[in-house]
Amino acid sequence: MNPKNAFYAQSGGPTAVINTSASAVIETAHQYREQIGKVLAGRNGIMGALQEELIDTSLESPEAIRALCHTPGSAFGSCRYKLKNFEQDDTQYRRLIDVFQAHDIGYFFYNGGNDSQDTANKVSQMSQTMGYPLTCIGIPKTIDNDLPHTDTCPGFGSAAKYVAISTLEAALDIKGMAASSTKVFVLEVMGRHAGWLAAATGLASNEAGGPPHIILFPEIPLDLNAFLDKVKHCVTEHGYCVIAVSEGIRHTDGRYITESNSVDAFGHEQLGGAAPVIAHLVKKHLGYKFHWAVADYLQRSARHIASQTDAEQAYALGKAAVEYALAGKSDVMLTINRESDAPYTWSIGTAPLNQVANVERKMPRDFISKDGFGITPACRNYLAPLIEGEAYPPYEKGMPTYSRLRNGLIEKKLNVPFSIAD
Amino acid sequence: MNPKNAFYAQSGGPTAVINTSASAVIETAHQYREQIGKVLAGRNGIMGALQEELIDTSLESPEAIRALCHTPGSAFGSCRYKLKNFEQDDTQYRRLIDVFQAHDIGYFFYNGGNDSQDTANKVSQMSQTMGYPLTCIGIPKTIDNDLPHTDTCPGFGSAAKYVAISTLEAALDIKGMAASSTKVFVLEVMGRHAGWLAAATGLASNEAGGPPHIILFPEIPLDLNAFLDKVKHCVTEHGYCVIAVSEGIRHTDGRYITESNSVDAFGHEQLGGAAPVIAHLVKKHLGYKFHWAVADYLQRSARHIASQTDAEQAYALGKAAVEYALAGKSDVMLTINRESDAPYTWSIGTAPLNQVANVERKMPRDFISKDGFGITPACRNYLAPLIEGEAYPPYEKGMPTYSRLRNGLIEKKLNVPFSIAD
Repeated sequence: MNPKNAFYAQSGGPTAVINTSASAVIETAHQYREQIGKVLAGRNGIMGALQEELIDTSLESPEAIRALCHTPGSAFGSCRYKLKNFEQDDTQYRRLIDVFQAHDIGYFFYNGGNDSQDTANKVSQMSQTMGYPLTCIGIPKTIDNDLPHTDTCPGFGSAAKYVAISTLEAALDIKGMAASSTKVFVLEVMGRHAGWLAAATGLASNEAGGPPHIILFPEIPLDLNAFLDKVKHCVTEHGYCVIAVSEGIRHTDGRYITESNSVDAFGHEQLGGAAPVIAHLVKKHLGYKFHWAVADYLQRSARHIASQTDAEQAYALGKAAVEYALAGKSDVMLTINRESDAPYTWSIGTAPLNQVANVERKMPRDFISKDGFGITPACRNYLAPLIEGEAYPPYEKGMPTYSRLRNGLIEKKLNVPFSIAD
Repeated sequence: MNPKNAFYAQSGGPTAVINTSASAVIETAHQYREQIGKVLAGRNGIMGALQEELIDTSLESPEAIRALCHTPGSAFGSCRYKLKNFEQDDTQYRRLIDVFQAHDIGYFFYNGGNDSQDTANKVSQMSQTMGYPLTCIGIPKTIDNDLPHTDTCPGFGSAAKYVAISTLEAALDIKGMAASSTKVFVLEVMGRHAGWLAAATGLASNEAGGPPHIILFPEIPLDLNAFLDKVKHCVTEHGYCVIAVSEGIRHTDGRYITESNSVDAFGHEQLGGAAPVIAHLVKKHLGYKFHWAVADYLQRSARHIASQTDAEQAYALGKAAVEYALAGKSDVMLTINRESDAPYTWSIGTAPLNQVANVERKMPRDFISKDGFGITPACRNYLAPLIEGEAYPPYEKGMPTYSRLRNGLIEKKLNVPFSIAD
């Protein structure tokens, strides 16, 4: 029997280590040439499969594939694209089968977060319904750390390390300025509806009174008075106040903080970002001079200070995806199982795709301090090992040497265009 | 003759390497115990001298002083505080003489940017006018790189490296997302009225069409139509557009971009930051989905990715400050003289304090491309060596181990309080 080709694609927001998983899938597949033919990467995720835009990774040098291990971004392109429900419209699925059949694809590896595991789940169900033999494995990835059934998600540890270090460094900066200038610094972090990245800023210090002095979680509606009291107390006590705020923070009535004044009298959009809103609230009520930062993409692409633990897990999961597929596993997302905190030991497991798709894991209440503005020791024990180790990329002339792929497409066989727009 | 004590202080915004200069001053002074007694550090810059709050650095361990080399922030506290004119009011100056005399201070080392060199200059002139023998040396420092008479300023190279790497990483991120999501990314950098840090983002790529595709300098008033045309061309050509914008960018009429809608109909402050303003302009006129980041303090405290060249220069200048003082130099700021670009060689020189105080060095026009949106090869040659090398700090449990000083004050001898508020 000829070896089947594998399809691999990246989906959703990139991370510092998603390409590490890609490298692992490709390198591991190469070790099983009798079972797996080419690894064809979807150009821009599942859209590449629909449009028959398949990147032939065998055209890349082994060095370029290796260098993916230390390259941020989505090397093959990613997407935010939701497949329709199979029952309502099976056009997309018939197209997928046509493409997979035309390119002899027997393995489907999909690397992404909640929404992306929905895609993996739908493809897996479709292949069964339509009787097309396809081994489907989801490889987790998200800086939001909100996938269920896994100890953590590749990408989170590196983003967590970045925001913890950034909080520490900015705190040292403002501490030195506070006597005659800025008293309050606000850093906005990502995480959507889950406070894991906000929590990670808490690793900046592990002593009472150390920064960040206040963390605003999406799980805890903003109690403005309690918040302002704490800012005031903090500036009085320490001379300055460092605040980390999650982009997903909400008012007690459920509205996002960033919506609060979203349109002014002229119909102009208010310039958003939770950090400036919080900073201006502090200024308005307490009068303190402030600075704010919004890390945005910088936090999820900061490969220059990636966590070694995170990079190792990202590689291990990519490798395991291939090995599990060859061992006959399918319709699962791979998971990290924590075996102990210190030393941090972990193994790889699986969770059914239909149990992870579209499910968000938020911070448990006992990871957030009683007053809602900090993390507990249990949370610290959970987070600490995930940022361990520094996986530095190589440098040349002061800049990281990130991998650059040719991304050459394999010749189309269908030559029937498919619109992904409708 | 008893050795005189030295006063050292930090002023203005901290950098990733200002404490490296502090470490050098203290370590070098220790090597000349017969000429220099204690190094007394001003708590919060010159305010510490006025208030007789002098940190006794001899109470710190040699290890803690060494570790300052890799610690961001202002270890002794900094200030934004302008001394009055001597002619108008000599109260502050008489106080300084009292404090210096009480603590037998014969050397004055002041570590800062334009405003801070004004302080150093005034203290130097005052000591001559009032007949108090004081050797005054300014040690340059600013991420803005806008001090005159020096090739570069310690702190700039590290901030430049940070913004260049951040631009590269975020560009890889958006490049992977652009097919189905965000098309435009805007990163705001510091630099006040000088475009040096904005220019440094240009090091992210050195090929035609590479990011950042557009740099908005404070030296070039924003031509909105030309800018929007370039954004549109860029998205059409490359699929995405990365924009770096200086916080000091202005309209053609001279107003800051961030002032444009500074108060809405309700009298609420518009939430500032040049990046969101630019991003919303793009959205309004071209409709592209955007993301924006404001690095703020993160860029000037990013010791985790400091430039080795920068750290070396910061140390060399701190060391030279002591040696020049002992050799009888005074009333000067130390400078870096570039001797060649590649390999980058440099030496230390001096410039009279009264020629550097309050003078801003902006980007020369021939460092900015003809269309005003990029950097020239000459600029690239200038910038490239300044970000060379990675001066990583040590880590423990995933976090940098930054120095923590006791900052114990020496006993007051005057015991007369002095108000710095009026």
